Amino acid sequence: MSATKANEEQGQTVRLDRAALKLDCGATLDHVELAYRTYGTLNKDKSNAILICHALTGDQHPAGINPLTDKEGWWTQVVGPGSIIDTDKYFVICSNVLGGCGGSTGPQSDKPDGSGPYGLDFPVITIADMVRAQNLLIDHLGIETLFCVLGGSMGGMQVLQWAAAHGERVFSAVPIATSARHSSQNIAFHEVGRQAILADAAFEGGRYFDSGNRPRKGLAVARMAAHITYLSEAALQRKFGRNLQDRDEVTYGFDADFQIESYLRHQGMSFVERFDANSYLYITRAMDYFDIAAENGGNLAAAFKNSDTRFCVMSFTSDWLFPTSESITLVRALNAAGANVSFVEIESDKGHDAFLLDEPEMHATLSGFLASAATARGLA
Amino acid sequence: MSATKANEEQGQTVRLDRAALKLDCGATLDHVELAYRTYGTLNKDKSNAILICHALTGDQHPAGINPLTDKEGWWTQVVGPGSIIDTDKYFVICSNVLGGCGGSTGPQSDKPDGSGPYGLDFPVITIADMVRAQNLLIDHLGIETLFCVLGGSMGGMQVLQWAAAHGERVFSAVPIATSARHSSQNIAFHEVGRQAILADAAFEGGRYFDSGNRPRKGLAVARMAAHITYLSEAALQRKFGRNLQDRDEVTYGFDADFQIESYLRHQGMSFVERFDANSYLYITRAMDYFDIAAENGGNLAAAFKNSDTRFCVMSFTSDWLFPTSESITLVRALNAAGANVSFVEIESDKGHDAFLLDEPEMHATLSGFLASAATARGLA
Repeated sequence: MSATKANEEQGQTVRLDRAALKLDCGATLDHVELAYRTYGTLNKDKSNAILICHALTGDQHPAGINPLTDKEGWWTQVVGPGSIIDTDKYFVICSNVLGGCGGSTGPQSDKPDGSGPYGLDFPVITIADMVRAQNLLIDHLGIETLFCVLGGSMGGMQVLQWAAAHGERVFSAVPIATSARHSSQNIAFHEVGRQAILADAAFEGGRYFDSGNRPRKGLAVARMAAHITYLSEAALQRKFGRNLQDRDEVTYGFDADFQIESYLRHQGMSFVERFDANSYLYITRAMDYFDIAAENGGNLAAAFKNSDTRFCVMSFTSDWLFPTSESITLVRALNAAGANVSFVEIESDKGHDAFLLDEPEMHATLSGFLASAATARGLA
Repeated sequence: MSATKANEEQGQTVRLDRAALKLDCGATLDHVELAYRTYGTLNKDKSNAILICHALTGDQHPAGINPLTDKEGWWTQVVGPGSIIDTDKYFVICSNVLGGCGGSTGPQSDKPDGSGPYGLDFPVITIADMVRAQNLLIDHLGIETLFCVLGGSMGGMQVLQWAAAHGERVFSAVPIATSARHSSQNIAFHEVGRQAILADAAFEGGRYFDSGNRPRKGLAVARMAAHITYLSEAALQRKFGRNLQDRDEVTYGFDADFQIESYLRHQGMSFVERFDANSYLYITRAMDYFDIAAENGGNLAAAFKNSDTRFCVMSFTSDWLFPTSESITLVRALNAAGANVSFVEIESDKGHDAFLLDEPEMHATLSGFLASAATARGLA
C-alpha cells in the first residue's frame, strides 16, 4: 500500500487554497477547510469519481473504519471494495459538510482574528454553501465532471443542489429519501431540537467551549426527538413494541421501564459524544432554508432546465420525514424539465433510516442505475 | 339562577369522603380531591348523566368560560345548551384527572404530613387510578349508571377503562381518537418530553416550588414536541407551509423566520403558564402504562366480555398519533366480545387535534349516536 493510499484511508483534511468562500448570507469565509476521505483510485480520464454527500449527523467516513470512533463507516452496506459503490472501480470522495464538526470549517473552528472558536459568530450557512465548498474540493482534486453525486436525506439535498447549480459537473445524480424543500413539519422538528439545545443552561450562548461544560442534556433531547422521526411507527412496534427493559413488571416510576425509552436514552447519550451542539444548530438551519424552487421563482422544474444529468430518485414507503410525495414532486419537476429520470418507491417498514440499512431493493436499484450510467460514461 | 347552579358553573372542588384510594402502584392516597364542574341538571331518574374525560393537558372546563384563563372551554364545539352534548337535556360532569394541576390531587398538592407539596414523592398513577377516582365522584353525586362516558385521546383511554372495569355503570361509551394501549412511538414522544423537563436546571428534582423558579424552558420544549404530533403534515403545510413570519426574506439566523417556528414557540410559552411540569411527567407516564389487553392476559376482547355498553368508536384519517389502525384493533376486540359497537373513520386533514375542532362528520356521528342511545335509555 502506498503512503498516499494509507493517508486516503485514514481520511485527511485539505485546506482549500482558492479564493475565500462567499456565502448565501452575504458573509465571506476565508481559508475554508474541508475534511474529506477518498477511497479507490481516480482513473486516467478522471471520469470515475463519485461524490457521496452525508446526512445531518454523518461524516466523511461512509466506508472503512472511522478513526475517531473505531467503528465501521455509516454506509458500509453500499460502499467498499466489490460493493455496490465499488471502490475497486470508482474513486469515491466524501467530505464533512461546511458547518460540521468532523474537521471541516464550522462553529468549532477558530476565528481568523485569533479570538477563539466561532460559536454563534459562525455565519449561517445553506445547503448551497455546503455544495460551493465541495465544488472547490472537486477543483482541488482536479476533477472536471463527477460520474455520480449521491446521498440520502440532507445528502440528497446536496445532490439536488449540485444538479441544479453545477449540473455541468454532474453526470448522474442519486437523491435518496429527500426533498427539494424542507417541509413545515420538518422545520418544526428541527426547531424543537434547537430549542432543546438553547434551553440547556450549559449552552451559554454557544460559548460552552469556555467552560468546557457542554450542553449535553439539551443535545441529547434534540437527538431523541429527531431519532423518532428517522424510524417508522411499524419499525418501533416491531423492534420494541411495549417490551420492558430488563424487568418483568413496570416499576411505577420514571426509569426507562420500556425498551424504547432505554434505546432512545442511549441514542441521545451516545450522540453527544460525537457531535457538537453548535454544528447541530447550523446544519439543521441549513436544511430548513433549503428550497430549490424558491430560488427559481417558485418553479422547481426551472432549476433543472436543460439538465443533462441522469437522475435516479428513491423513496421509502414508511419514510414519514421525507415521504414519497416529496420525491414525486421532484420527479414531476424533473420530467417537466425534460431530464432523464428514473424513480423507485421502495417498500420498507424501516422509515427514513432505510437508506442506511440493508434494503435489497434499494441496493439493486442503485446497482443497476450505476451500471447503466457507467456504460453511458464509457466506464463499463 | 340558584346558588348551587352558579357554583356548578364556576366549577367546584369536591373532597371525596370515601375510603382512601388504593392505587395500581400499591400506594394509597388519603383524602383525594377532584376538581370538577357540572353543567345542566340531573333528572329525577338520575339517568341523564354524561361524564366527559379530558385529554393530557385538558381540564374540568369543556364548556362555558374557564375561570382561570377567562377563555372558552376546550370543547365548546360539542358541549353547551342546545349543542350536541346538550346541557339543557343532559347533566354533564367533567373532572380534572387525578395527578392533574387543575385543582385535583396531584404532585402540586400538599403531602398529608404537612411537609409541603408532593413533587416527585407523588405516587405514579395509571389511567385506571384516574377512573377509580372518577368512580368515587360518581358515587358522591349519587349516580348509579352514567348515560354516556366520552372523550378523545387520553380521555378516550379513560372511556375504555370505564367500560372495561366498571361497565355496569356505563350505558354508552364514545372513545375518540384513542387506543387500548399506548404505542411504542407514543411512549417515545412522551419520553422526549419528560427528558426535556428533567434536563431543565430549574427542575431541581421536581422541587422547583422551593425556589419558585419553574422549569419553563424544558416544559416548553416538551409541549413543542408534543404539539407537532397533534397536527398532521398536511395541516402544517396548509396552515404554515414555508411562510415567513413578519418578514420578506430569511434572516440567516436562529430567530423564528418561519411561521411554524413562531407558532410552536408560542404554543410552548403559553403552555407553561397553565400547566405544571410534574403533572406533565405523571400524566404522560399514566398514558404510557395504559394497556388494557395486558391486564387481561393479552386478550383485549376479554376486557369487554359480556359488555352491555353501546360503543361508538371514532378515528381520523390524518391522526398519526392515534391512527385508525388502533381503533380498528379496538373495534375488532369489541366485536369479538359481542359488544354493540359502531365505528366511523372520519376524513380530516387536521390530525389528532381534529376531535377538538370543527369536524361536522364527527359532530353528526356523535349527535346520531347520542339520540339513538337516549331513545334506548328512555330519555327521548
